[in-house]
Amino acid sequence: MTTPATRIRELVVTPIAFSDPPLLNSGGVHEPLALRVILRLVLEDGTVGLGESPGGVTRLERLMVAAKTVVGMDVFDTTAVAAAIDAALLPGVPSSHERGWTTSAVEVACLDAQGKLLGRPVSDLLGGRVRDSVPFAAYLFYKWAEHPALDGRPAIGDDWPEALDPAGIVEQARLMQQRYGFTSFKLKGGVFPPDEEIAAIRALAEAFPGRPLRLDPNTAWTVETSTYVARQLDGVLEYLEDPTATIEGMASVARDSPLPLATNMCVIAWEHLGPAVEQNAIQVLLTDHHYWGGLRRTRELAAVCEAFGIALSMHSNSHLGISLAAMTHVAAAIPNLDHSCDTHYPWNSADDVIVPGVLELADGEVKVPTGPGLGVELDTDALDRLHRRYLDSGVRRRDDTGYMRRIQPDYELRLPRW
Amino acid sequence: MTTPATRIRELVVTPIAFSDPPLLNSGGVHEPLALRVILRLVLEDGTVGLGESPGGVTRLERLMVAAKTVVGMDVFDTTAVAAAIDAALLPGVPSSHERGWTTSAVEVACLDAQGKLLGRPVSDLLGGRVRDSVPFAAYLFYKWAEHPALDGRPAIGDDWPEALDPAGIVEQARLMQQRYGFTSFKLKGGVFPPDEEIAAIRALAEAFPGRPLRLDPNTAWTVETSTYVARQLDGVLEYLEDPTATIEGMASVARDSPLPLATNMCVIAWEHLGPAVEQNAIQVLLTDHHYWGGLRRTRELAAVCEAFGIALSMHSNSHLGISLAAMTHVAAAIPNLDHSCDTHYPWNSADDVIVPGVLELADGEVKVPTGPGLGVELDTDALDRLHRRYLDSGVRRRDDTGYMRRIQPDYELRLPRW
Repeated sequence: MTTPATRIRELVVTPIAFSDPPLLNSGGVHEPLALRVILRLVLEDGTVGLGESPGGVTRLERLMVAAKTVVGMDVFDTTAVAAAIDAALLPGVPSSHERGWTTSAVEVACLDAQGKLLGRPVSDLLGGRVRDSVPFAAYLFYKWAEHPALDGRPAIGDDWPEALDPAGIVEQARLMQQRYGFTSFKLKGGVFPPDEEIAAIRALAEAFPGRPLRLDPNTAWTVETSTYVARQLDGVLEYLEDPTATIEGMASVARDSPLPLATNMCVIAWEHLGPAVEQNAIQVLLTDHHYWGGLRRTRELAAVCEAFGIALSMHSNSHLGISLAAMTHVAAAIPNLDHSCDTHYPWNSADDVIVPGVLELADGEVKVPTGPGLGVELDTDALDRLHRRYLDSGVRRRDDTGYMRRIQPDYELRLPRW
Repeated sequence: MTTPATRIRELVVTPIAFSDPPLLNSGGVHEPLALRVILRLVLEDGTVGLGESPGGVTRLERLMVAAKTVVGMDVFDTTAVAAAIDAALLPGVPSSHERGWTTSAVEVACLDAQGKLLGRPVSDLLGGRVRDSVPFAAYLFYKWAEHPALDGRPAIGDDWPEALDPAGIVEQARLMQQRYGFTSFKLKGGVFPPDEEIAAIRALAEAFPGRPLRLDPNTAWTVETSTYVARQLDGVLEYLEDPTATIEGMASVARDSPLPLATNMCVIAWEHLGPAVEQNAIQVLLTDHHYWGGLRRTRELAAVCEAFGIALSMHSNSHLGISLAAMTHVAAAIPNLDHSCDTHYPWNSADDVIVPGVLELADGEVKVPTGPGLGVELDTDALDRLHRRYLDSGVRRRDDTGYMRRIQPDYELRLPRW
């Protein structure tokens, strides 16, 4: 039912840069600035829907293609909008996973606008809430005390102490618990030799008895190492995330692992589900509305997991409040959300683009916003400030490895490393 | 976001009976009256959402349980509403498929009410239309010229001549084409020995060259007979529907069949999807929002089919206009609707409960209603009339076999028969 009022007049895409601590992973270390793109979908009647996408010049350019594609389409036609963007990107972007990042961000902005038009929260457009607040896990990282001084730039500190060994990780977990009330913990691994990370997990288990724990080395390990770690941590972890690469590799580990295996790396597009199920490669899927096609598609993915007996958790990249609101709405609508969700929000929330007050991490949970749409309001001053920072920074794509090599010139990216 | 206005005040369930011609199938013959239940979901603000369910006293009683369960719940909480009904039914109804009939009908009524509250068509609540009209197939049946006189009741004729051989089926198909413009054809088989039904399909292929054809014997055949028919009709049918019973049986046929196999009988609940995929038992799923959990769940089921490379079609039981509207909205929202949908509507539409004018089968298609909700209006006089007919009739459950035996006392139900 297209009426002039519900047509899309304009999609404004604004790249931003925000502060990020020196968090270590299997590919290097987070740079001082992380990139996102903020979407404002403006309807003919002036209603604005918000979206948030991972940044980098490639994704920005694809969003600019999307911005041209959607003008004049009806905001309620989210399936057709996604198909139109997908078709526009297809010639240059053969990967459906890669196209998914773009269609997803636009879908969220459409649903935010729909909710505002209708006076209903986005969760109501997904079948309603089955929970009033969504549990998140503390996302623990090995980290340096500060970004070291570099190229004339002074060192950049943050609120979180150095964490480079089990004691440091336990201290970080205690701070996460104190500040946000988290009751489950995920460690980003793949940074130190596996036995050191096993020791960190054991230290967490001792410090937080009975709390769900996870370890995610981002494919830093071989099949053999993965199986070794899985056996060492049987009864300690709730699941082991992406220990090794590819569906085939995960299936090899799964055959000998007593632990459930989780992924957000080898099953990242709809066409991966068949092979993953056929090979029994994963027991937990970490969904992410940013690349599975948006919030409705995430709800559909949850149904696939339900039908095939795959447990459901949620992945996070560095993100701000618009994404957190979207994650919270969809998680609230999914009955079979079996694990607490991941979020980087504590690492980045000081630099947010939304007006504070709606999204709060307390007792390890975020209450589902009840206002129309996503329920969050854009802070346009903050957006301007972070956009200027993007323009001034010169950073145009994420490069954890390159940044690490500028600090440790002998650093080499190797996957698997152990 | 529960507000008093959006709470469910009452769910009114009204059993009705409507005229049905003597259509033959593998279990007997349709009785002169078919049963449905009409749902009116009344919100605190007076908004009414419509639903339609298969009838019979068992389903009616389950809907009465649902009616008690949903009072006071928010109409936007469709997932929670379904879960509450499911939990209320569980002690007495162990089959999730059977519970699905009840939750589905209520979900449709909720979405109709939501659409009316929001001023949007139901298709907009499912991601928007990807097509403005939905193609349906002519549903051909072997039939008698009339319901014979019985127990003092005179014979009951209808607008459709006898069809008991290939020439009769072709004539019926021509009438279907003339009256409604259908361009694809499905024959309900399982009535005559397989070679006679093969001959009917060949006659249709000759009369309508290039038009998609299907045959559905409702599990009347053994695995061996099914394979024989599939080989005979290779290159003639687009798919063969439920030739034999069970996932295992269909998988056996599929191994030797050159034709895609379709089902609405062996994969009828979410837990059947895993075994069906594992055994490669079906290539086409005929979905039906009346038992898969409603319209949103049907959209999710379509995503499962997409992910696992199963083509999608749509099943129909004898139904009236509320169901046709719901089928049309969800079919309009599903990108991977690969085949025209089934519908019994031409056999039953003379006795409808909705105000005429919105739903019209023309050129073999139904235009998607664009008004709020399902876009159809209840004809309360017709509802009263059909409800009185239900009360007066004494018919309380569908019994194709029992009715057949009253006319042909030596009739025996045998599945498989050939």
